[in-house]
Amino acid sequence: MTAATLTSSDLWADIAAVRERSPLVHSITNLVAINLNANVLLAAGASPVMAHAHEEVRDMVGIAQALVVNIGTLDPYWVSSMELALKAAAVRGIPSVLDPVGAGATPYRDQTIARLLDAAAPSVIRGNGSEIMSTAGSAIKTRGVDSSAGANDALGAAKALVQRTGGVVCVSGETDHVLDAGRRWSRLSNGHVWMTRITAVGCSATALIGAFCAAQSDHWRATTAAMALLGVAGEMAAEQAQAAGRGVGSMQALLLDALQLMDQGTFEQRLRLEVAQW
Amino acid sequence: MTAATLTSSDLWADIAAVRERSPLVHSITNLVAINLNANVLLAAGASPVMAHAHEEVRDMVGIAQALVVNIGTLDPYWVSSMELALKAAAVRGIPSVLDPVGAGATPYRDQTIARLLDAAAPSVIRGNGSEIMSTAGSAIKTRGVDSSAGANDALGAAKALVQRTGGVVCVSGETDHVLDAGRRWSRLSNGHVWMTRITAVGCSATALIGAFCAAQSDHWRATTAAMALLGVAGEMAAEQAQAAGRGVGSMQALLLDALQLMDQGTFEQRLRLEVAQW
Amino acid sequence: MTAATLTSSDLWADIAAVRERSPLVHSITNLVAINLNANVLLAAGASPVMAHAHEEVRDMVGIAQALVVNIGTLDPYWVSSMELALKAAAVRGIPSVLDPVGAGATPYRDQTIARLLDAAAPSVIRGNGSEIMSTAGSAIKTRGVDSSAGANDALGAAKALVQRTGGVVCVSGETDHVLDAGRRWSRLSNGHVWMTRITAVGCSATALIGAFCAAQSDHWRATTAAMALLGVAGEMAAEQAQAAGRGVGSMQALLLDALQLMDQGTFEQRLRLEVAQW
Repeated sequence: MTAATLTSSDLWADIAAVRERSPLVHSITNLVAINLNANVLLAAGASPVMAHAHEEVRDMVGIAQALVVNIGTLDPYWVSSMELALKAAAVRGIPSVLDPVGAGATPYRDQTIARLLDAAAPSVIRGNGSEIMSTAGSAIKTRGVDSSAGANDALGAAKALVQRTGGVVCVSGETDHVLDAGRRWSRLSNGHVWMTRITAVGCSATALIGAFCAAQSDHWRATTAAMALLGVAGEMAAEQAQAAGRGVGSMQALLLDALQLMDQGTFEQRLRLEVAQW
Repeated sequence: MTAATLTSSDLWADIAAVRERSPLVHSITNLVAINLNANVLLAAGASPVMAHAHEEVRDMVGIAQALVVNIGTLDPYWVSSMELALKAAAVRGIPSVLDPVGAGATPYRDQTIARLLDAAAPSVIRGNGSEIMSTAGSAIKTRGVDSSAGANDALGAAKALVQRTGGVVCVSGETDHVLDAGRRWSRLSNGHVWMTRITAVGCSATALIGAFCAAQSDHWRATTAAMALLGVAGEMAAEQAQAAGRGVGSMQALLLDALQLMDQGTFEQRLRLEVAQW
Repeated sequence: MTAATLTSSDLWADIAAVRERSPLVHSITNLVAINLNANVLLAAGASPVMAHAHEEVRDMVGIAQALVVNIGTLDPYWVSSMELALKAAAVRGIPSVLDPVGAGATPYRDQTIARLLDAAAPSVIRGNGSEIMSTAGSAIKTRGVDSSAGANDALGAAKALVQRTGGVVCVSGETDHVLDAGRRWSRLSNGHVWMTRITAVGCSATALIGAFCAAQSDHWRATTAAMALLGVAGEMAAEQAQAAGRGVGSMQALLLDALQLMDQGTFEQRLRLEVAQW
């Protein structure tokens, strides 16, 4: 698989694989997102499990096919849970995904991100532009990486993070960018601005990435597929809501519907994917 | 009330009693289910209260008509809350319901279940087949009960648990089974497979059982009525969603609607109930 | 701005200001309400952030335009978070709103409310009648205020609380009352009884008050505007659900839709506002 050959059929195959294999995704996520993330995973065909007790985090990682950690409503107990889980995932060799929610908002968030990155490099990091910039900044400050690495913009920061972790970094926004250490770079321009008016849709993207990495060992491709599914589902849901004179409340239900009922023809027709090298 | 005489009208009477009395149900539940459980209780006509602080758990049990504990996202603090609450419910004599979410997934869950069963026998335990088997196994291992009691299948495990606790055990699935120490056995075959694609629907069943036990002192009948209401509402919601070309996102709202708006004629017509002795 | 001149256009201007400025509202709220509150804030055009770690609470207050604290699922850690945040908000001079959920239900709730009121007087307190009475009682007991101040009914209690805190007090119910220390008193009679059948709608009112206080420095007017928006949106959502043969599940989505899509004509036509002196 090289960047040049990633097709809409490849991504659809990954969507089908998640539905068929129903991977168990262990999430340690925030209190706002926890319900929607479970429902997003179920709608996409995966199996969610949420567990944060130190007494069982490693055991739960031991039966999961992927781990997702999200610092949205972090506190010391939960941060330790995430650290334990990331280390266990690294030992077991299952994919791990980090969502650095609110990176840069407070020093505690940045310290936590640095600590989690030190614990084990996640397979994938997903955030919006400013979160990725802050995360790269934390990594750079903490690790002494050359700060000329381009952290002054999100793509530069993403590249610095890729080099730091060796994994995949996804910068989501109007266009979603997915970069990996092989310098592959996918760009997705699906989605709808109303997706930013429903809480935890970004966190749900991260949860989906976990499910897709469990079903597709090329994590760059898996991340692209997850973001593609959510982007297409999101724009369909927004269009359906607007056509019915409805708003973001109705759209949330329609988003889950679209994740569940998405068919290959619709997906491939709507997909707006570009692939390049960086 | 014997098994042979449980009718759809009896169950409807219990649904009506919950609506009329609006029992206060104190839930110590998981972070994924907490919002939906509150909404399910409200839709069915009950009054939810969620409280887990050790400082107030006993006081809250003191004003509630039923207690529901659910270990889905357990940690040591919350486990202690559940233990305090179960003991307080036993002292006060109000019904208590245990949902052993994820039993068998980790040793910590099994230890917790054993600890909660030691604290006080719940009036009702509800889980899926594997949870009931693991819960019975925990009980058996912990208590030295004869392991030939049939824990190798869910119904056998349910019977072992009934004998251990003296209470009611509900094994939910494609068919829901409700057994009690008087050897009464109800079987419900309502519901829809999409109910497993919405997170916390099982937990919501447990919450409803709490409400029904508060309104109907025969806990076997109450549990049967709660499962019947949810099963009928769930299949109606799934059918309505599918008829509109919608999926599990829309179905969640329709499920709450059906719980609230269920009428006697629809309920009794759709109910698929069998009653036997075990 | 005096009581006599508060018009529907004034309130609409505040709704528009929230949409335009999108204030960052820091909420330390309960686990049942946390997702809906975020969605309500987003639907109304505000930006929610939830954070409770002691390590970052002050920093998050430092970048927010308003603070909302809600004791619905309190425990000692979260109570300390709320106390730290209220003090930080007072120092910074941003508006703070307290929702004393379940006041009077347990001694721990009452002690907590007394402790929070001692930490810093909130700009606004919102609760239902019994919560306001218990809150006033806690304040009175704790502070030795003359207990003849009229705490035997909700309006009397609200007045006592206004005098204690110097801020705004909102008693919500079939009619919402908003009182301030300048003896201004607005009464809103919008809304629908089904709003009490969806969990956390009251908590969402409190969240909205935070957003409005960030956009309108007259907190009595801001509170009135927030309650007016929610009341009008709630009655529209209930009417739409009922017209479609739906219930409270569908209504929740429609409520978010209405908050987002509300237009000036509909709002001003439906508004039922009275203004007086107390």
